[in-house]
Amino acid sequence: MSTPPLELYRDSNHACLMFSDLIDEDGVAVQANQFLIVDDGTGAIIDPGGILAFNELFMGMSRHFSPHKLSYLIASHADPDIIASLDRWLTSTSAQLVISRIWERFVPHFTKVGKTDNRMIAVPDGGGRLPLGRHELVLLPAHFMHSEGNFHFYDPVSRILFTGDLGVSMTNGAEARVPVTELGPHIARMEGFHKRYMVSNKILRLWTRMVRKLDVAMIVPQHGAPILGAKAISDFYDWLDGLACGVDLFDERAYQVPTGMIDPQTRQLRPALKAVGA
Amino acid sequence: MSTPPLELYRDSNHACLMFSDLIDEDGVAVQANQFLIVDDGTGAIIDPGGILAFNELFMGMSRHFSPHKLSYLIASHADPDIIASLDRWLTSTSAQLVISRIWERFVPHFTKVGKTDNRMIAVPDGGGRLPLGRHELVLLPAHFMHSEGNFHFYDPVSRILFTGDLGVSMTNGAEARVPVTELGPHIARMEGFHKRYMVSNKILRLWTRMVRKLDVAMIVPQHGAPILGAKAISDFYDWLDGLACGVDLFDERAYQVPTGMIDPQTRQLRPALKAVGA
Repeated sequence: MSTPPLELYRDSNHACLMFSDLIDEDGVAVQANQFLIVDDGTGAIIDPGGILAFNELFMGMSRHFSPHKLSYLIASHADPDIIASLDRWLTSTSAQLVISRIWERFVPHFTKVGKTDNRMIAVPDGGGRLPLGRHELVLLPAHFMHSEGNFHFYDPVSRILFTGDLGVSMTNGAEARVPVTELGPHIARMEGFHKRYMVSNKILRLWTRMVRKLDVAMIVPQHGAPILGAKAISDFYDWLDGLACGVDLFDERAYQVPTGMIDPQTRQLRPALKAVGA
Repeated sequence: MSTPPLELYRDSNHACLMFSDLIDEDGVAVQANQFLIVDDGTGAIIDPGGILAFNELFMGMSRHFSPHKLSYLIASHADPDIIASLDRWLTSTSAQLVISRIWERFVPHFTKVGKTDNRMIAVPDGGGRLPLGRHELVLLPAHFMHSEGNFHFYDPVSRILFTGDLGVSMTNGAEARVPVTELGPHIARMEGFHKRYMVSNKILRLWTRMVRKLDVAMIVPQHGAPILGAKAISDFYDWLDGLACGVDLFDERAYQVPTGMIDPQTRQLRPALKAVGA
């Protein structure tokens, strides 16, 4: 039995819930957060997750919200930890999938034939505002962070910015429930992931320039803990502005014809033997 | 009933087969190629595909090769059109999954709990050589083309380079069976995809510098037609060297807080009304 979802925000008309421990904490699959946003009795799930998360999220959601009132499955991008459960959600609800247009013809590979017909809102690169109940969600361009076609989601009621793989920290479901209010000690848990999975500093800087114009109370990533409060959020933007990542860090040393052999028994790479005297 | 696979190469010990029309040609899901490589009675599938392709590929493969002799499911990266069928393949064969280490903790989200335990070879960024029968496949670094953790596969016997999403052209299953020997007229079918999905020209140039050292008879992408012969392949490398793409082409105009509303009924974006006189 998983713990109840974390209530990120609630007023009489609007709620944001975060599910953080729906997958087994065995370390094989990366911990992931899923989100339910309800406004005036209408609901959206952000980044519903993989096959591992489906049953528990569906049941967990049903305790707070009737699945037949679910309007949207909103996916930041098309990775398996984001949306591999798509076939089951499309079967179990009448929600529409909201995803970048550049994945429009790729996501049907997650499902049986015809499942996505007339069920997909393919978002153009510039993003848009999506009506939800009496309010709306803002689909913000976040391409190459990391996916080529990628969106973040800003909720103007709670002032939460849902950032998918940006701001991710590697942790477990319990730690993911404790918001970070001081960025400094948190950087070590974010740095390795962002240097390898984010694509370039140019993009990080274009993104911070955009989001600094929004009034953000909390940044909530898809893995790990939320970042809470003006100071920690501003420090997060500053950290991204100075972070070299992805293609910035790859050079000709990374693109060489390999010589080492992979051993299928041990599943490890054996480096090539050097010639005598080499 | 699908057409028989295209025989890209065959000698008495070694064969490379390409399946190109396993998904319905309805235009909803992107056309995709899957590959079976057999050496000395041992087999590997490259980029096995999504849920849509599984049944037909499994049956189609069984006509040429016994599934219990399948050693590897090799995935260039973790997109749904590449590997969303993973759970079924792990159930139906004893093959190991070979994929970038950076997707090691993400691909379990494609499967039920525990399915990938002791079934995954997580390839380090530098790549390696993977034994197959009496020969080997070379796992070449191709990160950011498009996926952050991405490999191409060179078969030294057939001298085929399997390039995943690089060299892709948007077409149907029948056209994908006709190799391209003159690059010029083919560029229009590749250009849009490469400019949007490939990440940066810097990476394309690092890649061409590496692969020019290999003796390549044919470049075979995961969507669309193979590129055949020294002249067309050399022209392909030259085209990539000069191609601006991905983050090269995105600037502050692409990262703006959107104003247009998405209409959930029509699934289209309605631009914001301009103020009078604006």
